Amino acid sequence: MKLATLKTGTTHGRLILVSRDLARAVSAGDIAAGLLDAIERWDEVHAALLQLSDRLNAGRLAGDFPLDPRALHAPLPRTWQWLDASAFHCHGDLLEKVFGLEPPPEKRTVPLMYQGAGDDFLGPTDDMPLPSESDGIDFEGEVAVITGRVPMGTTAADAGQHIRLLMLANDCSLRVLAGKDLKTGFGFMQSKPATSFSPVAVTPDELGTEGWADGRVQHELRISWNEHPFGHPHAGRMGFSFQELIAHAARTRNLSAGTIIGSGTVSNEDYREVGSACIAERRGIELLDQGAPKTRYMHFGDRVRIEMLDRGGRSIFGAIEQRVVQAPRP
Amino acid sequence: MKLATLKTGTTHGRLILVSRDLARAVSAGDIAAGLLDAIERWDEVHAALLQLSDRLNAGRLAGDFPLDPRALHAPLPRTWQWLDASAFHCHGDLLEKVFGLEPPPEKRTVPLMYQGAGDDFLGPTDDMPLPSESDGIDFEGEVAVITGRVPMGTTAADAGQHIRLLMLANDCSLRVLAGKDLKTGFGFMQSKPATSFSPVAVTPDELGTEGWADGRVQHELRISWNEHPFGHPHAGRMGFSFQELIAHAARTRNLSAGTIIGSGTVSNEDYREVGSACIAERRGIELLDQGAPKTRYMHFGDRVRIEMLDRGGRSIFGAIEQRVVQAPRP
Repeated sequence: MKLATLKTGTTHGRLILVSRDLARAVSAGDIAAGLLDAIERWDEVHAALLQLSDRLNAGRLAGDFPLDPRALHAPLPRTWQWLDASAFHCHGDLLEKVFGLEPPPEKRTVPLMYQGAGDDFLGPTDDMPLPSESDGIDFEGEVAVITGRVPMGTTAADAGQHIRLLMLANDCSLRVLAGKDLKTGFGFMQSKPATSFSPVAVTPDELGTEGWADGRVQHELRISWNEHPFGHPHAGRMGFSFQELIAHAARTRNLSAGTIIGSGTVSNEDYREVGSACIAERRGIELLDQGAPKTRYMHFGDRVRIEMLDRGGRSIFGAIEQRVVQAPRP
Repeated sequence: MKLATLKTGTTHGRLILVSRDLARAVSAGDIAAGLLDAIERWDEVHAALLQLSDRLNAGRLAGDFPLDPRALHAPLPRTWQWLDASAFHCHGDLLEKVFGLEPPPEKRTVPLMYQGAGDDFLGPTDDMPLPSESDGIDFEGEVAVITGRVPMGTTAADAGQHIRLLMLANDCSLRVLAGKDLKTGFGFMQSKPATSFSPVAVTPDELGTEGWADGRVQHELRISWNEHPFGHPHAGRMGFSFQELIAHAARTRNLSAGTIIGSGTVSNEDYREVGSACIAERRGIELLDQGAPKTRYMHFGDRVRIEMLDRGGRSIFGAIEQRVVQAPRP
């Protein structure tokens, strides 16, 4: 199943089901009041959603309509808890080296994870309003899961059953502010503005056993910046599985239904060949190889595109396509 | 106005208005679907709430009932964004000294703030279920504000108009895990389990101009542990006002209506006289004065009480009264 949320001017929008090829959609507003409601009542609504999805994919629906990604919110326009990891070791290793950071203790055995703001997500084609170019505006291409309710103390072995949906994320970062936030130890606050998500969220079975294996999405993430290809690292190279990330998050707390957990910037050891999913990583490589970063951060008007194709070259989640703009004064 | 939320088995409970003396209450369920809904539609519902509150305080209501704090959720049982500062400088200074931490850059001019989990708050008399005594279980007595929607870029000068309600918080901390979390730079994750709040949230005017001045609550916070007085630091000694904390939070993001911002552990320079609002601070003082911490952290079965009295000795927010218990295995 592929699910998305139409903008309707309300907080939660309208839940829709989207055809496998992302061409057509149908309202699921009769089944759930929104995706968050559907996740909260998953066992209750799953069969009805699946039946509608099957009929949509079979082309047997009268009320379907062409999907316009510009009409979409994030699949969850807001949620109660958004946690983002840094699960690709080579990304963390590189940034530590570049910024002269102390390596976190136990970094190969305990996931790095920060708490993000879940109250104000951006849709896949929404502009990203930000106050200043001088904050070091960066995109970060990621994979994320949406979970059902996860009780405190759930182990990695038991966490898989709570994964409801997968999606892509653009975890926008302000790199100049991130350095300051990191030094406080209190985590990323001002350096993490609103996060954006792919047009659709999909159930893991949509990816098949070759696309979703070992608690990782087994495809490349394709990033372009102002229409130039920037990187295509493989999302399967996570140092921790999503099950391990969920267990880490739930060690001392319950995770409410609708919790989103992100992978952190997708990154591969051979980043010099496959490129990167964020600018900071490329700047880090330039610093190591050429003595100084050459690539600037984003300017107002710049565009980023983040997408993932299956082995047949078909878009799985639709594309995040956003433009950075100057935020209006309040 | 004093507002609270009755447990009803639903996510948001039922909004109630509480009399100034905390003795009686009346349902406001006809006015708003819950406190979060009321905050989101504040301008629309404020007059009706005020009128009902006035009638309750005048003793002119038929449908009122005695208030039982054990029947209450947190005023907001969950919310979209929970941010907690560390705005009492002497608390931060002491803990830096004790834990040998690098002082955060600009700590007197830029507030320290972390993003907390807003999805699973505890009510004022709820047990605090935690996985292990060896995590260093601590209470933290705080003051907090609930805001309306705050647009990105709002300045401290403009932030005051967005403060809707004040309340007390018990920002439970796991000190052994906090050290690890701090070292990652990614902020408090496993070290911050569910936060608890006072029985009622009150509009700032309830405190009068002597109780709410300079963006600070001008009363002592009274903490006791297993019925022994533990501290009564004055909440007016914040190094930053709540307006400054809101502006810090909103620098690169919008804050949705219902955002909670906490003060951090209330602490005064003369902590040796007035005591502390958390155990870590007392242990720090013992380490400095006696060479080693003498006071243990909380054990299962321990109780904490957090309350604030006005100058007439009347409880403003009601008391947080909680017991730490072993969390069940999932």
